[in-house]
Amino acid sequence: MTEFIPPATLFHALPAPFAIKRGGALHGARIAYETWGTLNAACDNAILLLTGLSPSAHAASHAGNPEPGWWEAMIGPGKPIDTDRWYVICGNSLGSCKGSTGPASIDPATGELYRLTFPELSIEDIANAAHALVQGLGIEQLACVIGCSMGGMSALAYATLHPRSSRTQINISGAALSLPFSIAIRSLQREAIRLDPKWNEGAYTDASYPENGMRMARKLGVITYRSSLEWSGRFGRVRLDGDHRDDDSPFGLEFQVESYLEGHARRFVRQFDPNCYLYLSRSMDWFDLSEYGDGDVAAALREIALDGTGLSRALVIGVETDILFPLQQQEQLAEGLRAGGADVTFAPLPSPQGHDAFLVDIARFGPVVGDFLGNLQ
Amino acid sequence: MTEFIPPATLFHALPAPFAIKRGGALHGARIAYETWGTLNAACDNAILLLTGLSPSAHAASHAGNPEPGWWEAMIGPGKPIDTDRWYVICGNSLGSCKGSTGPASIDPATGELYRLTFPELSIEDIANAAHALVQGLGIEQLACVIGCSMGGMSALAYATLHPRSSRTQINISGAALSLPFSIAIRSLQREAIRLDPKWNEGAYTDASYPENGMRMARKLGVITYRSSLEWSGRFGRVRLDGDHRDDDSPFGLEFQVESYLEGHARRFVRQFDPNCYLYLSRSMDWFDLSEYGDGDVAAALREIALDGTGLSRALVIGVETDILFPLQQQEQLAEGLRAGGADVTFAPLPSPQGHDAFLVDIARFGPVVGDFLGNLQ
Repeated sequence: MTEFIPPATLFHALPAPFAIKRGGALHGARIAYETWGTLNAACDNAILLLTGLSPSAHAASHAGNPEPGWWEAMIGPGKPIDTDRWYVICGNSLGSCKGSTGPASIDPATGELYRLTFPELSIEDIANAAHALVQGLGIEQLACVIGCSMGGMSALAYATLHPRSSRTQINISGAALSLPFSIAIRSLQREAIRLDPKWNEGAYTDASYPENGMRMARKLGVITYRSSLEWSGRFGRVRLDGDHRDDDSPFGLEFQVESYLEGHARRFVRQFDPNCYLYLSRSMDWFDLSEYGDGDVAAALREIALDGTGLSRALVIGVETDILFPLQQQEQLAEGLRAGGADVTFAPLPSPQGHDAFLVDIARFGPVVGDFLGNLQ
Repeated sequence: MTEFIPPATLFHALPAPFAIKRGGALHGARIAYETWGTLNAACDNAILLLTGLSPSAHAASHAGNPEPGWWEAMIGPGKPIDTDRWYVICGNSLGSCKGSTGPASIDPATGELYRLTFPELSIEDIANAAHALVQGLGIEQLACVIGCSMGGMSALAYATLHPRSSRTQINISGAALSLPFSIAIRSLQREAIRLDPKWNEGAYTDASYPENGMRMARKLGVITYRSSLEWSGRFGRVRLDGDHRDDDSPFGLEFQVESYLEGHARRFVRQFDPNCYLYLSRSMDWFDLSEYGDGDVAAALREIALDGTGLSRALVIGVETDILFPLQQQEQLAEGLRAGGADVTFAPLPSPQGHDAFLVDIARFGPVVGDFLGNLQ
C-alpha cells in the first residue's frame, strides 16, 4: 500500500502495551512527529500542536523538509507561533496514515495490515499517544497545547486525562462533543466509502481502491469545511470554459464550484488511507467530554480549569460561518473553562471561510494566536 | 417501471409541440394536477401551487383521494389556504414522475422511455407547463401563485414569462438563482446517483435500480433541508438501542440521527425516479432570473412587479435556519419586487426546521399565509 509519510519525519515508539480506551491494546506502535525551534534548558517552552483529521505532522517547513507545511504561515521565526521562542511539536494522530500507527499499518502480531482489525479508535487514544510523545521528549509540562478542529477535541481530552500537562491551551474551531448535524455529515462520508464496492470491507489494494467513495467523502467534507458566503463571493455562478468541461458525460461538471470540489477530491483521494479515514471520522462522532463531568459538559470543562490542574489560561477561537463546529460550541468551551477559573480569551472571528478558516485566514488568526502566545510569561 | 401517480389525479394535455427552453419540444406531454374548492363565475378566485422538487400534485386530501397530502394542514375549508373561498390548483412539475411527463415517461416517437433522451429541462419549462395547465382550465388571471422551494423559482419564472398572469405571489423559501453552495450540494447528490453502477447511464430497471445512489442523494438532501439547531434539540447524541442497530456491519448506524436519515432515505428511494431527480435537480442549478434583467437580478425582479404586469402584492417568506436557500435570497426577492412597485410583505421566520420548515412549522407559516390571502380583495 502507498505510504504517505513526509520526508525527515521523526518517530516515537509508544510504550507497549499501549491501552486503547474502548478495549484492546497496541504493541510496537509509533507516532510520527516533527519539531521546530529549540527546547530550552528549563524544558518549559514547548508547544504541542494537535491536528485535524487529515494533516500530517508536517505543519511547517524546516531544514529536513523545505516543502511548505499545512500551517506554514503560522509557524516559524517571527511568525505567530514564533519558533525563536517556542519549541513546537506536531504529531501525526494515532490512527492516521502519515507515519503514525493506524489501520494502514502492519500488525506485528500477524505481519498483515491491521485494516478493520485495528482497535476501535477514540479521540482519547489520540490524546494519550500525543502525551506519550511529549513525555518521551522529556517534557513534563507544556507551555501550550494548540488544537484545531478534531485537534481541539484532542486538546480537551489531553487536558482532561493529563492534569497539569499544559499551562495553557489554544482551542481553535473545536468542540466538547459532536452535534447530530456533524455526525450526520460524517456518517454520510463513511457510507460513501463503505458503499464503494472497491472498499471491499476494508480489504482494498492500490490496484482496486475505493476512489469514488473517497472522492464523494472528500467533496462532502470540503462543502462543510467552507461556507456558502465564501463560495458566493469566490465562484458565484461562473461556468467552466469549454476546455475544462467533460461534455461527453451527461450531468457532468459545469460550474466552477463543481470543478473546485473535483480538484480537491482528486488531490486527496490517493493521499489518505480510506480505513484510517473511517476510524478517525468515527472517533469524532464518539467524542463527548460530558463523560468526564457525570454527563455534564460544563462540569467536565470546569474540571479542566480548576486550580491545581495547571490550565490557567486559554484562548478559544471560533468562526461565525462554521457550520460543522458552530460558534456556539466554542462559546460553550470558553464559558466552561472560565467557570473553572481559567483566564479565557474568547475570539469569535468573522472569517468567511467557515470551519477551515484557520488554515487560510491567517490575517485574522495570526494576530489572535500571536498576541496570546506573546503575552504568556 | 414503477408508477408513482396518486389516485384520482387529473391530467391536462400540453399543446404539441411544447417548446423546451434549451432546445427541442415535447409531443403528447401532460401535466398531472389536482384541485380543491370551486372556481367562481368570475374565474378570479384561483390559486396555483408550484411545488418543490419531489412532491406530487396531491397537496391535500379530497373526495377522490382521502390520503393526507404533503401540505394537508395548509389547504382546506377554514385552513390558511381556505378552499371555501379559493379554487386551488396544484400541478406535478413537468419533468417529474408523479403523473406529469418526464424522463420516466414513454416517448411517443419511439414507444420507449425517454430516460436521458428527454430534453434538457429548465425551471422555465416547468413554469410554462403550469401556465398551459391554468389556461386550459379557463383561467385568465390567477389570484395568487404560491411557490415553495424549487416552486419559488418556478413562481418567479411564471411571473416573468407570463406578465399579468397573477395578481399576487407568495414566494416561500425560494430564490432568484442558485448559489454555489446549493449547486455543490446538488452536484454531489447527482454524482451519488451517477456513480451507482446500477444507474447504468439512466438505463436502470426495477430489478436493477440505483438504490444506493438514491439513498445517498436523499440523505444529503435531508441534511440540507433541515438545520443543525433542530437536530441538536431533537436527537442530541442519543444512541439507537440494541434492537435498532445493525451491529454486524462495521461503521453501521449507531446514533438516532443516522437512523432518522436512513428511514427518510428508504421511504424515498423507490418513490421517485432517479432520472427525473437528476433532471429536476439540474434545472435548479441552471435557474438564474438575472437572464431576464440583462444580467441583473434586481432588474429582473423589478420587471416582475412593474405597473402593468399585474403583480401588485407579494408575500416573501424565508427561514433564518435555511442553509440551502439562505434568508438573504428571500430578502433579495422582497427588495427587488418592492423596488418594482409591488406591495411586499417580507416574513423572515425563526423556525428551527431550516429549508423544509414550510412543510412542518404550520404554527408559523399558517398565520402568515392565511393573513396575506385573507386580506386580498
